[in-house]
Amino acid sequence: MPLGLYDGVKRIVEKAHSLDLPVIMDCKINDIGYTNRVENYFNAGFDAVIANPFVGWEDGLQPVFEVAKEMNRGVILLVYMSHKASWEGYGQMIYDSKTGEKKPQYVAFAEKALAWNADGAVVGGTYPEKIREIYAILKGKVPIYSPGIGAQGGDVKAAVSSGARYLIIGRAITLARSPGEAARFFRDAARKS
Amino acid sequence: MPLGLYDGVKRIVEKAHSLDLPVIMDCKINDIGYTNRVENYFNAGFDAVIANPFVGWEDGLQPVFEVAKEMNRGVILLVYMSHKASWEGYGQMIYDSKTGEKKPQYVAFAEKALAWNADGAVVGGTYPEKIREIYAILKGKVPIYSPGIGAQGGDVKAAVSSGARYLIIGRAITLARSPGEAARFFRDAARKS
Repeated sequence: MPLGLYDGVKRIVEKAHSLDLPVIMDCKINDIGYTNRVENYFNAGFDAVIANPFVGWEDGLQPVFEVAKEMNRGVILLVYMSHKASWEGYGQMIYDSKTGEKKPQYVAFAEKALAWNADGAVVGGTYPEKIREIYAILKGKVPIYSPGIGAQGGDVKAAVSSGARYLIIGRAITLARSPGEAARFFRDAARKS
Repeated sequence: MPLGLYDGVKRIVEKAHSLDLPVIMDCKINDIGYTNRVENYFNAGFDAVIANPFVGWEDGLQPVFEVAKEMNRGVILLVYMSHKASWEGYGQMIYDSKTGEKKPQYVAFAEKALAWNADGAVVGGTYPEKIREIYAILKGKVPIYSPGIGAQGGDVKAAVSSGARYLIIGRAITLARSPGEAARFFRDAARKS
């Protein structure tokens, strides 16, 4: 059920901020610059947005990065997603348009995360081997956020030990009998990893 | 300004339907299946959604197509976008994962539009040569929708004569001094093309 950006969503954002927690809009932006309208999310209080680098720079993500910089917010790029078909797009082999080199799409995306000074890179917690490979490119300059822990089968220890700095956990907490207990469980597991 | 899906947006949808016009949600879906929640758009009255084939099939667009079929609505796939950086993603050269063949990304996307029985393909009106090339693959089995006419520099005649069946026109109408007059202008230009 949609909550309304300046209504239910804004109240959740304010609650999180009152607990000193940052909030990220996982909107997977992939439209033309004019339409992305990222300032709406930032005006509603979000500290960062997630965007798809597939859309490219000029008239695509460039205005998103510019608005974010101006408003002192973050842009996190999708580098490898958590779902089963991730291999189709994120895992496909491409020719680098500059070098003519053959490489996986996610390597090109990790390189864009560095070149564009992204504030984070999303790599599915369901693919720890991809986290390791992408961490080797990002070298800690761009932190890795890993979704897919729990409901999608990702494992906390495998993701963190492969290089994930943050875990994105949805259903395994929100649909748990006791969400608070589930959240504490994952926090403790991450600390021990 | 966000209007709220079941509030302002729904009123626009109802107004369009009262004039016998279909409405398409240009949300450029590119999330995992569980999160796409396309039924919300259909429940709000939309006749079709636009999705990014880059997300892939399994646990990606498969549930979107399934829900659409169940609810008798449409799914339109992005094949080549209208903005300047479209070459970066949609125009990149890839290796086909099945055949090992080297081809442009948009050719692979057009082939997915056919294989997945999409109800439409979006090809930027700013790139009539791409419309022509993609039309040659789709052969009228999947109609082409062309955005980017007007504000982004796309030309009605070039788009239609290259194979576009429908034109998506935003700012050139919405920001016109007389939107009704602008809409009639584009309609007449399309009919003459």
